[in-house]
Amino acid sequence: MKPSFRILKTVGKARLGQLLTAHGVIETPSFFFCATKAALKGADLQTLHRVQTPVLLANTYHLMLQPGAPRIAAAGGLQGFMGWKGPTFTDSGGYQIFSLGHGSVHEELKGKSRPQGRLKITEEGAFFYSYRDGSPWYLSAEKSIEVQQALGADCIFTLDECTPFHVSTEYTAQAMRRSHRWAQRCLDAFNDPTAQYHRSYQGLYGISQGGIYPELRQESTEFLNQTEFFGHGIGGSLGTCKTQMYEVVESALQGLCPERPIHLLGIGGIEDILYGVSQGIDTFDCVAPTRLGRHGGALIRPYYWQTALEPFHPRESINLLKACFTEDDRPIDDQCLCPTCQNHSRAYLHHLFKAKESTGGTLLVTHNMFFMNQLMKEIRQAIEQENLEVLSKKWLARLA
Amino acid sequence: MKPSFRILKTVGKARLGQLLTAHGVIETPSFFFCATKAALKGADLQTLHRVQTPVLLANTYHLMLQPGAPRIAAAGGLQGFMGWKGPTFTDSGGYQIFSLGHGSVHEELKGKSRPQGRLKITEEGAFFYSYRDGSPWYLSAEKSIEVQQALGADCIFTLDECTPFHVSTEYTAQAMRRSHRWAQRCLDAFNDPTAQYHRSYQGLYGISQGGIYPELRQESTEFLNQTEFFGHGIGGSLGTCKTQMYEVVESALQGLCPERPIHLLGIGGIEDILYGVSQGIDTFDCVAPTRLGRHGGALIRPYYWQTALEPFHPRESINLLKACFTEDDRPIDDQCLCPTCQNHSRAYLHHLFKAKESTGGTLLVTHNMFFMNQLMKEIRQAIEQENLEVLSKKWLARLA
Repeated sequence: MKPSFRILKTVGKARLGQLLTAHGVIETPSFFFCATKAALKGADLQTLHRVQTPVLLANTYHLMLQPGAPRIAAAGGLQGFMGWKGPTFTDSGGYQIFSLGHGSVHEELKGKSRPQGRLKITEEGAFFYSYRDGSPWYLSAEKSIEVQQALGADCIFTLDECTPFHVSTEYTAQAMRRSHRWAQRCLDAFNDPTAQYHRSYQGLYGISQGGIYPELRQESTEFLNQTEFFGHGIGGSLGTCKTQMYEVVESALQGLCPERPIHLLGIGGIEDILYGVSQGIDTFDCVAPTRLGRHGGALIRPYYWQTALEPFHPRESINLLKACFTEDDRPIDDQCLCPTCQNHSRAYLHHLFKAKESTGGTLLVTHNMFFMNQLMKEIRQAIEQENLEVLSKKWLARLA
Repeated sequence: MKPSFRILKTVGKARLGQLLTAHGVIETPSFFFCATKAALKGADLQTLHRVQTPVLLANTYHLMLQPGAPRIAAAGGLQGFMGWKGPTFTDSGGYQIFSLGHGSVHEELKGKSRPQGRLKITEEGAFFYSYRDGSPWYLSAEKSIEVQQALGADCIFTLDECTPFHVSTEYTAQAMRRSHRWAQRCLDAFNDPTAQYHRSYQGLYGISQGGIYPELRQESTEFLNQTEFFGHGIGGSLGTCKTQMYEVVESALQGLCPERPIHLLGIGGIEDILYGVSQGIDTFDCVAPTRLGRHGGALIRPYYWQTALEPFHPRESINLLKACFTEDDRPIDDQCLCPTCQNHSRAYLHHLFKAKESTGGTLLVTHNMFFMNQLMKEIRQAIEQENLEVLSKKWLARLA
């Protein structure tokens, strides 16, 4: 069974939907947690179920290097290998590989120098060196599909070059058109029923590129609409600030085939998700909520501050490492129903981080995952009840 | 309510019992996992419940340094602070402090040099420096009780000097007699109803000392029997090999008041537990099963090898880091009902350790805890059914 997508309701541009896969239904809008190396850092299966995580996104680049795609295929794909029975996505591996050459978004924004000579991009694909042992690797459009078929996720992505924002319009255009050619080759490889790891239940997402340039985004949209992808991803540079990001997302979405599911790659801030949903994005993924938790950050409903009478500046998270939590015997959020807030205090979490106990990270990852899944549930209810704007105002009122 | 201990059945020297505390019943023989810094490394509360852990042992030394006993008292004791509602024990803090001066058992067995000048022992107590910030600290008999009352565990231990095996009979005797005087002072402090943190539900264990010398163990036993302790611990040096350890345990147990519960400190090997139970030990604690898990070791029923037809040397654990598990899609033990064996393969666990994913440790800690709790359950059933010897033979047959 191929995956399918159905839109249950549209309010403005926002959509309530269902993504049906061979391994379960994903209610949309939905947020995907990143099980980068076939494991969600800080959460075991029981925790994933307890916080009602609908879907995991694993990473082609990391998994092709360790333990290798054939190994995972032999174990029955990601589901068999991980023991996770729910739906999965994999990215194309491109983002990590091109980060080697271009540097990460963080490095770019900080103006850090980028390593040279670790990446070579040609029409055929990308040559790079393994971060594990320095061995040379090669990823083409066809290879990315072969690996993703071996991994066996329900939905997979085409290989694309994720250009940074500082490159010229010319380079962005050139890279985008090459990514389009790669995307077409990916689709051809994907549709080849004789491929070694061909799986009939997979869906392929094509990715919008074009950086911050509206005319290039338009060109990308035209390419995507004409090509038989199951869904679309919004990739590439989204700019340097929220205002620019929202403009880029808007121009990428303009005219994009509305019947296919749309995924916004690498975005996970509360404000950004609320904005994305209002513009018609169906799914999101980001490492931020779980990474934040491992480093002591707990997501907080911004409107919590309106009632809490606490002397904190309203923000999307609190840092449990701070000394002000040493004697704070309240839960992170007394309204939260997650296992962490039901059982543990801020003071205890603060102690765990101070004592370098990894359980601190585990408990915050649990809270943050529950929090994100709860946010997405509220968003779906708000679309159903046609009051997404009210929900957004409630969540964003104190964030300005 | 003071804790109480009742023996349900005695077969030979082995006892089936119940330790009733204000926070729940501990069926004995039982194994205590170490939540050293008020957290069990690699397991959250849900995991503790899932693997049916009856009781936790926390560490006075670590907790008095961070976050400090008054902080934990203010949070409602260990139960309130940790969110763990079941029974708890704390040790006296002595073992860690005296390890600073004498070196750890491991260092001692390896002949490593011990740091000097970090510890001074007087009749009054021990002066030492914090491993966290180098600040000077002081632990007397009275202080150990005060801290343990503040922590609020159900059962606590007297302060004792844990002498290493290499010291002379004279030093061992001298240290033992001082530990006895400390134990009496501990009891006096413990029974003082005006103490700041006095808690009526606690029970105090006095500890047998005397190292490897039977006549000193006998003297310790006489002291313990004459003194109004709730229970007894077997502490101090147990020698350098299993044979010697079993002799020391036997001589420590000889004549020890049979109505009080007996705890063997720091012992957690399968063979040692089976031996200890057969000699009349009721409870055990050790960091080994959880530490082993965090480093890639999974406990295995030794008799598993009899049916598994696997080319491994029979032993108490397997090391999942080994390359032979790379393509091993079987669970650790196909008879095991723990969440790890129910959901994950050896190959996946091997991958997690190779990819440095902390979830690998979490999953093995889960397995090892379930394994130990299952072992203790089988031991209790065997005493009930009067076939402990059969069980021991089954578990030890292939370990020789």
